[in-house]
Amino acid sequence: MSSIKMFEKPLGMRDTFPITYEKTEKVRQIGREFLRARGFDFIQTPSLEYFDTVGKASAIYDASLFKLVDSQGNTLVLRPDMTTPIARVATSKLLKEKIPLRLSYFANVFRAQQSEGGRPAEFGQMGIEIIGDESVFADAEVIITVIHLIQAFGIDSFKITIGHAGVLNCILKDYTESSEQADTLRTLLVERNYVGFEEAVESFDLPITKSNALLQFISEATNFVSIGEIEKYVRKNDSLKYMQQLMELIEVGGLTQYVALDFTLSSHMNYYTGMLFEVFAQGSGFALGNGGRYDGLLQHFGTNVGATGFGIRVDRILEVLPSEPSPDQTVAIIFEEVLFAKALEMAGAYRAEGKRVTLQSLKGLADEKAFTKHFDKVVYVSQEDGAE
Amino acid sequence: MSSIKMFEKPLGMRDTFPITYEKTEKVRQIGREFLRARGFDFIQTPSLEYFDTVGKASAIYDASLFKLVDSQGNTLVLRPDMTTPIARVATSKLLKEKIPLRLSYFANVFRAQQSEGGRPAEFGQMGIEIIGDESVFADAEVIITVIHLIQAFGIDSFKITIGHAGVLNCILKDYTESSEQADTLRTLLVERNYVGFEEAVESFDLPITKSNALLQFISEATNFVSIGEIEKYVRKNDSLKYMQQLMELIEVGGLTQYVALDFTLSSHMNYYTGMLFEVFAQGSGFALGNGGRYDGLLQHFGTNVGATGFGIRVDRILEVLPSEPSPDQTVAIIFEEVLFAKALEMAGAYRAEGKRVTLQSLKGLADEKAFTKHFDKVVYVSQEDGAE
Repeated sequence: MSSIKMFEKPLGMRDTFPITYEKTEKVRQIGREFLRARGFDFIQTPSLEYFDTVGKASAIYDASLFKLVDSQGNTLVLRPDMTTPIARVATSKLLKEKIPLRLSYFANVFRAQQSEGGRPAEFGQMGIEIIGDESVFADAEVIITVIHLIQAFGIDSFKITIGHAGVLNCILKDYTESSEQADTLRTLLVERNYVGFEEAVESFDLPITKSNALLQFISEATNFVSIGEIEKYVRKNDSLKYMQQLMELIEVGGLTQYVALDFTLSSHMNYYTGMLFEVFAQGSGFALGNGGRYDGLLQHFGTNVGATGFGIRVDRILEVLPSEPSPDQTVAIIFEEVLFAKALEMAGAYRAEGKRVTLQSLKGLADEKAFTKHFDKVVYVSQEDGAE
Repeated sequence: MSSIKMFEKPLGMRDTFPITYEKTEKVRQIGREFLRARGFDFIQTPSLEYFDTVGKASAIYDASLFKLVDSQGNTLVLRPDMTTPIARVATSKLLKEKIPLRLSYFANVFRAQQSEGGRPAEFGQMGIEIIGDESVFADAEVIITVIHLIQAFGIDSFKITIGHAGVLNCILKDYTESSEQADTLRTLLVERNYVGFEEAVESFDLPITKSNALLQFISEATNFVSIGEIEKYVRKNDSLKYMQQLMELIEVGGLTQYVALDFTLSSHMNYYTGMLFEVFAQGSGFALGNGGRYDGLLQHFGTNVGATGFGIRVDRILEVLPSEPSPDQTVAIIFEEVLFAKALEMAGAYRAEGKRVTLQSLKGLADEKAFTKHFDKVVYVSQEDGAE
């Protein structure tokens, strides 16, 4: 431990410097105005929660949790997601006042990193939750909202891939011989390990019709353009009907072009019970965000209502955001000691014009040249040459 | 631990509901625009830092630190203040680019609570740091900025009480017989324990001139209106001259009415070396914020430059903020299933008028009456009676 240098930060922890801060703030502002206009109410939950409540319910891998013990001996966690704390708040209070709830957040979440790999251990998420509406319209609202939100950021090239936990479960059950086999395949899909999936199918020694069906499914199911194509793998059921309706509502919203079907989509968040989706932008190797229906989660908190929502990662939005020059005009007013009053007055005048004005005494300035190069305009208030 | 109920939160942890969230956001926005216009650049630092770096340097009582151990065996802390992380960032990177730095933040800090006493364990702070300017103008800028910032929030009745660590140290040294006695008295002043101060002075068995001077000082020194009044207790020195200059600059700024002198002011933050101050608003029992010069802190990080700044507590600002009715107009559009397209269109039209529009299917609504009472206007899109 003595090897830690004074400037070091813990694994995966980052500083946000002014340029990135301003971009983040822009995303925050656009998102806030957009979501509030759609009737979503912003809330904030504490960074720390009990492990026994939110920690256990969150379904984030245990190794990714930052844990600590409080003075009472209880184990606490830094919130690993926002969906679970919001489920706690909704169940304990807000659902008693209004159903369905439309809640929104902009918050940092925490995922411990085990090695130095460039992945952040703390990152910003913006998202919504619609709680207490089990209709397909709530899911359609979630998908339509995420599409318009990404567009509001000025991002045009992106795709939403939608799957359904119920449809996938049905296929995995029908074409395997045990729930262990089905679970193994589901875990491989969560990891996007398609090669591992094929190897596992072959190792199961399944009847040839089943193994062929699974292998064909895995090669085709990420490229479907309509619900009809999945029907050769799965019996007609409510989940399929639901997906059909969902796609129709997205078409009514005029947004079909942004949507693709991927019935291999699965989540390590085991509370996703229905449709689930991911958002991919061109130029980003990772998902910008994800979401889906999680009717199972609220039961952890003793309420039997359905819920659906999405969360997007602010850092990944920043990566694909079109770059724009800063609109700020910066002015440095550098004054001699006795002219403080004059300098104050000038600063007020420039600020009234909307400029960012730094008031700096000449006395406090060690390297004038190094300092002034950071400004669009430099004004000297000195006795020699008058005001400017 | 099994006694934790699913809705409970750790000691001192709070949820922020929509009404408070919006007030907080307003404070954030006003503060951001105000500080950016004055040339301050916003930065963010991670929630977690190494104990050996920021934790030890922060001078927050050890019992108030949230500590955890990472997978490498290093002790981490949740940041207990922002001044110390900013000192880290400034020293490691930003000071190489620009001196002086003017940095700003809006961030949550963490202080562990030992008992249920209503004190928050996580709270928002907004503040500034001017790093690398040792002149009195930087201190004047800090005080003038905090006054105008509080005014920008719409708060009129408040006072800044200013003291000076150097002046206090000089008095405590001159009128005691040992550094232990001086330290004891300083600690009592940090706790605002004036009765304890008097008892300690009497227990020290000091020469009568010294004990009388200390007792008179403690009864008078929180009510001085000019620097002259402290001069009977303390030899003329640079600290007094500095304070004289500072008060003159505040007068040039036209802000003398907001300022009072309190030479008993002391801080448990032992990195405050020069002037220090607190902000009190009428109607709040606690300080809204505090600040001062902390030339000692940067040395922890290996740089010998002076720094000065302030931090204000967002929760305490909210307590004294004048209440204003929400300007939002909320509309619920409740639609029958087949009229989704029509409802989408209407929602767009109302949003274009700046209204907050919630689009809700009748199908997903369990209790229509309970839901609709939350809106200023409710519009039904149904087949029976046309559009409205």
